[in-house]
Amino acid sequence: MKALVLEKQHDIQLREIDLPLAIGPRDVKIKIHTVGVCGSDVHYYQHGNIGSFTVREPMVLGHEASGVVAEVGAEVRHLQVGDRVCMEPGVPDFESKATRLGLYNLDPAVRFWATPPIHGCLTPFVSHPAAFTFKLPDNVSFAEGAIVEPLAIGLQAATKARIKPGDLAVVMGAGTIGMMTALAALAGGCSRVVICDLVQEKLDLIHAYPGITTVNLRQQSLLETVTGLSGEWGADIVFEASGSDKAYDGIFDLLCPGGCLVLVGLPANKVAIDIVAILAKEIRIESVFRYANIFQRALALIASGKINVKPFISRSFKFADGVAAFDAAASGNPRDVKIQIELE
Amino acid sequence: MKALVLEKQHDIQLREIDLPLAIGPRDVKIKIHTVGVCGSDVHYYQHGNIGSFTVREPMVLGHEASGVVAEVGAEVRHLQVGDRVCMEPGVPDFESKATRLGLYNLDPAVRFWATPPIHGCLTPFVSHPAAFTFKLPDNVSFAEGAIVEPLAIGLQAATKARIKPGDLAVVMGAGTIGMMTALAALAGGCSRVVICDLVQEKLDLIHAYPGITTVNLRQQSLLETVTGLSGEWGADIVFEASGSDKAYDGIFDLLCPGGCLVLVGLPANKVAIDIVAILAKEIRIESVFRYANIFQRALALIASGKINVKPFISRSFKFADGVAAFDAAASGNPRDVKIQIELE
Amino acid sequence: MKALVLEKQHDIQLREIDLPLAIGPRDVKIKIHTVGVCGSDVHYYQHGNIGSFTVREPMVLGHEASGVVAEVGAEVRHLQVGDRVCMEPGVPDFESKATRLGLYNLDPAVRFWATPPIHGCLTPFVSHPAAFTFKLPDNVSFAEGAIVEPLAIGLQAATKARIKPGDLAVVMGAGTIGMMTALAALAGGCSRVVICDLVQEKLDLIHAYPGITTVNLRQQSLLETVTGLSGEWGADIVFEASGSDKAYDGIFDLLCPGGCLVLVGLPANKVAIDIVAILAKEIRIESVFRYANIFQRALALIASGKINVKPFISRSFKFADGVAAFDAAASGNPRDVKIQIELE
Amino acid sequence: MKALVLEKQHDIQLREIDLPLAIGPRDVKIKIHTVGVCGSDVHYYQHGNIGSFTVREPMVLGHEASGVVAEVGAEVRHLQVGDRVCMEPGVPDFESKATRLGLYNLDPAVRFWATPPIHGCLTPFVSHPAAFTFKLPDNVSFAEGAIVEPLAIGLQAATKARIKPGDLAVVMGAGTIGMMTALAALAGGCSRVVICDLVQEKLDLIHAYPGITTVNLRQQSLLETVTGLSGEWGADIVFEASGSDKAYDGIFDLLCPGGCLVLVGLPANKVAIDIVAILAKEIRIESVFRYANIFQRALALIASGKINVKPFISRSFKFADGVAAFDAAASGNPRDVKIQIELE
Repeated sequence: MKALVLEKQHDIQLREIDLPLAIGPRDVKIKIHTVGVCGSDVHYYQHGNIGSFTVREPMVLGHEASGVVAEVGAEVRHLQVGDRVCMEPGVPDFESKATRLGLYNLDPAVRFWATPPIHGCLTPFVSHPAAFTFKLPDNVSFAEGAIVEPLAIGLQAATKARIKPGDLAVVMGAGTIGMMTALAALAGGCSRVVICDLVQEKLDLIHAYPGITTVNLRQQSLLETVTGLSGEWGADIVFEASGSDKAYDGIFDLLCPGGCLVLVGLPANKVAIDIVAILAKEIRIESVFRYANIFQRALALIASGKINVKPFISRSFKFADGVAAFDAAASGNPRDVKIQIELE
Repeated sequence: MKALVLEKQHDIQLREIDLPLAIGPRDVKIKIHTVGVCGSDVHYYQHGNIGSFTVREPMVLGHEASGVVAEVGAEVRHLQVGDRVCMEPGVPDFESKATRLGLYNLDPAVRFWATPPIHGCLTPFVSHPAAFTFKLPDNVSFAEGAIVEPLAIGLQAATKARIKPGDLAVVMGAGTIGMMTALAALAGGCSRVVICDLVQEKLDLIHAYPGITTVNLRQQSLLETVTGLSGEWGADIVFEASGSDKAYDGIFDLLCPGGCLVLVGLPANKVAIDIVAILAKEIRIESVFRYANIFQRALALIASGKINVKPFISRSFKFADGVAAFDAAASGNPRDVKIQIELE
Repeated sequence: MKALVLEKQHDIQLREIDLPLAIGPRDVKIKIHTVGVCGSDVHYYQHGNIGSFTVREPMVLGHEASGVVAEVGAEVRHLQVGDRVCMEPGVPDFESKATRLGLYNLDPAVRFWATPPIHGCLTPFVSHPAAFTFKLPDNVSFAEGAIVEPLAIGLQAATKARIKPGDLAVVMGAGTIGMMTALAALAGGCSRVVICDLVQEKLDLIHAYPGITTVNLRQQSLLETVTGLSGEWGADIVFEASGSDKAYDGIFDLLCPGGCLVLVGLPANKVAIDIVAILAKEIRIESVFRYANIFQRALALIASGKINVKPFISRSFKFADGVAAFDAAASGNPRDVKIQIELE
Repeated sequence: MKALVLEKQHDIQLREIDLPLAIGPRDVKIKIHTVGVCGSDVHYYQHGNIGSFTVREPMVLGHEASGVVAEVGAEVRHLQVGDRVCMEPGVPDFESKATRLGLYNLDPAVRFWATPPIHGCLTPFVSHPAAFTFKLPDNVSFAEGAIVEPLAIGLQAATKARIKPGDLAVVMGAGTIGMMTALAALAGGCSRVVICDLVQEKLDLIHAYPGITTVNLRQQSLLETVTGLSGEWGADIVFEASGSDKAYDGIFDLLCPGGCLVLVGLPANKVAIDIVAILAKEIRIESVFRYANIFQRALALIASGKINVKPFISRSFKFADGVAAFDAAASGNPRDVKIQIELE
């Protein structure tokens, strides 16, 4: 079967590769339609690793996918051949302690698409557990279905924050995940989300979204904006989605007493934290590792119009041009929030 | 000073009455602009009591109010003369145990406008604690400011529900409080709210609101609607806002495992409840008594456009026609979600 | 293999029966040591059914068990032959939506020992998923291991209550589940638990347990006791563990503003509930269906001495006298909190 | 009136000082019986400041106090002359936003005993709001009443942790606050608390407390201890009560997936934090600033025997020897968990 294969750092090939496609009684086979290019895919392409996850063998890329059910296992009840679907890319040990606790995303045994040595889904057909395959509502497109994965991270963050209706939130960083987190925070109950970045082009893409206030950190004071919007009380929630250690300078000043910081971004190094500033406001800190039990929520919010992801799906490439799609993503155009590849 | 006075059951007069207007150091004096007519006002008018609260002396009506600050006490910092404001009508003992716990709405010592023997605010000027007087954002009208009170009940319900982004909710009853609860649930994170009633005219008023599905119980099966929308899992939340004991028939069948019922409506009598049905799904039940710490959240949600109350402000009467406003409200036209009285 | 078989209502036999014993790769085979006699077992014996669960075929009884691992499946890592263990009796579909949410006890597909048509464990050997088999700490006896199951219900109730350290709780009903709930509430953070019943002998059994106050409802006022202990504020939590509809008379008067009622007992019929009384205090109601993720917590609390179940293990019968054990349990001696059967 | 006055750094005098004693209608006058010496008192003595709080004028020391009501204001209902009491030392603006939210400890306007420029209570009589004066149960001594204040910090930490019954916790640091936190965690539902320190004498003082495991970091591996006790899953909660930046090395390795770190100690400088380690386990971080609504809980737990503070009340000095008490505390004897001064 053809697949987009990361041979090693800096080397992607669209080529034939031998992949297992037998499905078990609780699996489905899916004909892949659309796959998003994720920052992690690009990072493996450019660096050959993410932390301790190193590409040692050729690996099929891609984990943000939608498609059509082509075959169903004998025990599958909620899906049928022909169903339009999207897929949760990480499959845990279902009997593990983490899964039984409802924290299956934290199970050390999770097998996650395109995380070495597990192959991803940039290939015409995949086999996947039916439990992690979700039917698209009729008014949700394949492109929207394929962006559910990054949106799910934002929604996991919004869920962890335990938003109260009317909260004021700040999102640090207007990358793809920051954008998705802002959308999730608004859909999840915030009255307003202030999103900040250093790159004006990124902020321009989300500026008109209802409920959004953008702050260009080169030109405006984030603290003053938050102080003004909150009547000097502070933001209820700050989502750190930049992964920059500089975001932590004065971050607790943004928050109200009893406020919540949600950690989404991954800084490269340890960050110097002002513990006393946390205690003085009894700040709560939550953190996000992928998502659990979120995909159906994301689909419901897109279907009902509470979340509009369309402005953030930037460009689409054909499967034959998959390498070009990765090169485009690697070039870092700030207007490319999400590049996708269509296999059909 | 002139005021709309409920003399006794069936007898409202617009007449002079002696009301104290001195303000303490932490109070403000407010020139009243708009006052909504609440079902409780109408109930006192028609019945002379609500439960054990009985009108024994003439009482000024009205507790849903907006206006302009006319004078500020010496210690007031966050308000100035001329500020457009709305007011939270129940003032607790600030040093009580309930207040210290953040549950000031549950303080037995609360003094609440137009709850016997406390006078309401249908009069040109009132004195009120600055702590319970909230500045209207520039884009929030007096009419919107005066509907914050019933909306606050809906938001208290939405807050108690602990909505997770993407939840599916049901609201039983499309009266004013049911409507406000539906708006609050959507703003608070639900992907969709199914609202049901027996009266089609009420449902028509909210039918076009984004995210709403209406069910006329005379024509459609609520259970089938919920089953269909939830993929046979059940609703995450049911808000009981009808106050009808019939609403409880099969109410737990609507909910998913681990779902939440929020009690908002007040049935006249005890209701027969299927305890085993609660346990079989480990249902959580929350309940709402007015609101605490909600007014600023309501204002923020109206200001940002996340809640649109305009379709629910039905008619406005002049102060001189205040008795007619109450008679109109008492007539029970299903299209009158909220009637208001303008004093200026 | 020999087993205690409920042939039909009123008829238990200790006899040979054909039971599958093959173990899968993630299962263990356990040599059963001790099995508690549960009220549900006795109810099937006396009535032939519990609600819609009807004994239509001979069924092995017993679901509160401890024993020794006799064989382990190929993929089992955390257990070894010879380990002393106890077992969680209900096994869900591990891939179900409920399990993924951490609510596996609510999965409709749960297979639960001695719930028709599933056989129980009153037989020398059983096969069971390793994921639901828990090693006993060295200082926890087989008898204690076999009482973990009813204790787990109490701990599920205590967990649902979200006890804050120092809470005052009331337990309605001093049956086995009421007793276990009282122990769990104390271990879970309550400063004091008031337990009430109509039968003095039951209260005598728990009277000396540290932190317990007993109230004989025939002689004392529960409300006065709670009022006195709480400085007129009310109890933080009430656990309804009697299953009697009379327990609901005035039950909300016992609670403080914002208090919590936890439903544990199963009334035979619908109960008339004062909804207004719930709202007036914004009471939260939680409910309990068995338990999830509790067994290891129960074992840790017994092992550390925070829970002492020994006073509640009343009598032990030999396997050969199993029918007599059931007849003793059915006789309803109030001093028999827990009767057990030893197979070794 | 006589008082223990910190004149300036290094200079405490027992001398006459003019203090206001008039009581308002909601205040009580208290004849002080016992006052504990707190580390913060000692810090002001030794350093003249804590952070930005600087002793610029002579200040009466002391904020951990018990006594007897000597006079009650006209509106006080729950206290009478002669009542034995202890007092919460920080009084907020009762009408502030923080108070209304139930977060009165976070109100910037809090006036806290012995925090410059507010006088403390090491003087025979004080006036105090009745709302923050709590009657001692009959079986709670003045000495126990005076240790409620540091215990309240531990209980605030235990409450913030949202302990589930049976949790395993770690407390970093066996100073007074660490000890109180360990007691609170056990009373609040933990099955076992591992407390660690570098000083064996401190660990010896708590070693025999039921449910405690001590770890001397110079001799044992904390990680191995936790791994062993938790079956390789990790601790549910870590309380950082040492204030040492070294405590943060590997602190997240101690926690289970989804575990909670509670910040109690105040490091002198910023601490380098491994953000990625937080995210990888979706760790939640809570923090503690004094306490709110805790004193009555502390008293209930002491009264019921669930918390035994007696082993931690080390020595008592007479008022006349108050300076010696401070010198003893300043000398840092590891066996002095809590030194108290008796005024009667």
